[in-house]
Amino acid sequence: MATEYLHVPAATLQRQIELILTAWGMPPEVVAPTAEVMVETDLRGIDSHGIAMLPLYDQLRRQGKIEMRPEIATVRESAVTALIDAGGGLGHAPSVEAMDLAVDKARAAGLAAVAVRNSNHFGAAGAYALRAARAGLIGMVMTNAGSRAIVPTRAREPVFGTNPIAFAAPTGNGEPFVLDMATSTIAVGKVKLAVYNHRPLPEGWVVDGEGDDVTDPTLAFDGHGRMKPDYGVTPLGGLPRLSSHKGYGLAAMVEILCSMLPGTPFIGALADRREHETGHFFQAMDPDAFREPGAFTAELDAMLGHLRRLTPTDPAAPVLVAGDPERAAEAQRLDSGIPLPAILVASLRQVCADAGVDFLPEHAMAPAAGT
Amino acid sequence: MATEYLHVPAATLQRQIELILTAWGMPPEVVAPTAEVMVETDLRGIDSHGIAMLPLYDQLRRQGKIEMRPEIATVRESAVTALIDAGGGLGHAPSVEAMDLAVDKARAAGLAAVAVRNSNHFGAAGAYALRAARAGLIGMVMTNAGSRAIVPTRAREPVFGTNPIAFAAPTGNGEPFVLDMATSTIAVGKVKLAVYNHRPLPEGWVVDGEGDDVTDPTLAFDGHGRMKPDYGVTPLGGLPRLSSHKGYGLAAMVEILCSMLPGTPFIGALADRREHETGHFFQAMDPDAFREPGAFTAELDAMLGHLRRLTPTDPAAPVLVAGDPERAAEAQRLDSGIPLPAILVASLRQVCADAGVDFLPEHAMAPAAGT
Repeated sequence: MATEYLHVPAATLQRQIELILTAWGMPPEVVAPTAEVMVETDLRGIDSHGIAMLPLYDQLRRQGKIEMRPEIATVRESAVTALIDAGGGLGHAPSVEAMDLAVDKARAAGLAAVAVRNSNHFGAAGAYALRAARAGLIGMVMTNAGSRAIVPTRAREPVFGTNPIAFAAPTGNGEPFVLDMATSTIAVGKVKLAVYNHRPLPEGWVVDGEGDDVTDPTLAFDGHGRMKPDYGVTPLGGLPRLSSHKGYGLAAMVEILCSMLPGTPFIGALADRREHETGHFFQAMDPDAFREPGAFTAELDAMLGHLRRLTPTDPAAPVLVAGDPERAAEAQRLDSGIPLPAILVASLRQVCADAGVDFLPEHAMAPAAGT
Repeated sequence: MATEYLHVPAATLQRQIELILTAWGMPPEVVAPTAEVMVETDLRGIDSHGIAMLPLYDQLRRQGKIEMRPEIATVRESAVTALIDAGGGLGHAPSVEAMDLAVDKARAAGLAAVAVRNSNHFGAAGAYALRAARAGLIGMVMTNAGSRAIVPTRAREPVFGTNPIAFAAPTGNGEPFVLDMATSTIAVGKVKLAVYNHRPLPEGWVVDGEGDDVTDPTLAFDGHGRMKPDYGVTPLGGLPRLSSHKGYGLAAMVEILCSMLPGTPFIGALADRREHETGHFFQAMDPDAFREPGAFTAELDAMLGHLRRLTPTDPAAPVLVAGDPERAAEAQRLDSGIPLPAILVASLRQVCADAGVDFLPEHAMAPAAGT
């Protein structure tokens, strides 16, 4: 069964997002960074975290869970730290502000960290880490995702969101190292994909309320595409014998830096397990505070080159470095556009109609073999 | 088959380590922090990283790979960063100095990072993260372990050491969160244990030079207790379908912060895959730079309490928080001593004889059921 894709140039997609957000009442200075981050995320192939989020954002907006005219304010600040209150809006704009502030401070002092509270979904963590790397700095980003998903090792219920960690480092050749990973074994989206494709789940992805492994993906979801309350995904490691307690520990670390550090409620203890307020953590560090200028990037280039040249077990699947798949997607999509599957196109059409704005990419629908 | 243990009080063990290191020519100001960290590690139940390392240290010392009179020097410094050269000695003393320097700077500025180069094995990363937490700060510690062990996803050979990450956060009740984890699925020591116990390895622990899973542990080792060159452990995740590329990414992140940041050679590209120079990374952050005093620890206490009270899948195995097992071991060992297995006792006796010092715990050998 071939999926139909609409290939949309990045500039069109960005304009589309800007139109929708503006129609929702978001002021221009918030629209600009939000649309920029969302489109970059789609360009880099992280389809789950870009424009595909708009239907959910629309729903949360209608439920009054996202403030469209947020007051974004720096409420505490020192030479190397800051706390930003996101005003209850979407996470993208305050996160751009937070990482840019961390970058400015780290350029001056060598190192800086900025925490954000009272925020919402900020898209892909890697987008902000990459921002630091493009400025020549080492970036680290975390967020406590707003829906309970990860079941702690030995427990019967999900407690943490998928709590991602991103880490980026600048190179001399313009191909930065960009790690962006949930601390769960897999994303909830991948479990849903197994439902669509009628495929069994590998052992170590999903557990039920008894802690037992679930291989039939249909068991894990209610009729509305939501994972049932007592089902959850495993922490990275997947199984206790493969050290899933380490993924659990990493998820807890992210929660500490994104809940307790900025002052955001811990989702695990809340009655509502979904779409609650989130917090973020951003850090920037200047390699030149430790090394002679150029030494860090030259040595990192050498290591990444060494890794990419390793003999692979399968000649058709070369050894990759974090950030390589996203860079390849970006090159392709800058050329041929961002592929939107038909089901997303239908959702976006509805979002546009409800917002009273044109659906811009109207005229390019064509079947494609996938991307 | 019951293993015999010699139970030794911590103070005796510390004195023993001090005697040996002093006999090896290490000056008192280096001996003191080294012995302190090693004994604390044994007290906390991390048997693989405390006194059990002495026979290997002895061997490396004889090979001229560890400097016993290191010149430990801060070679670069700003208000919130520093680079320490460990002088080619053991990692413990420069690491205590590095974390204490990070703590001092973070108390003054809110945040600080110190990198260490030209070092060696520093014991357990958690010991230094805990040091920050005891000072009321959030600590993060990494090291690029000195022997190649982790095979990158898709590759045929080990490239990274087990590259651990430690993270500790202070609580209000004196029971800090202390995560200390290798970025491999399991430690090489656990694979050796399977050899001793004639037990097959779970899928996802060890791979051979073809990238194939190894379940017979005897295949992975040479006749001298060393893993064969083309065998290695998997990155956290264990299997590609359980996202082992995430563990690979984390191991690379640790390498970046411990090789490229301080300026330590990248082990993956060296001819000798074992016991090479290592680098370390230490960071301290003051929660009070972001929150009102006490807010962070109160909220962390609440989260950790929530986690410990979760209903477990097995009533006999409660949900734990990172640091709990080590705290339990410490309480027990402060009471009944540190259990040294007979095979380690024999090694230590030899180390003592070679160093010309007494073996202090001579008179306590008694069979015990294990600990």
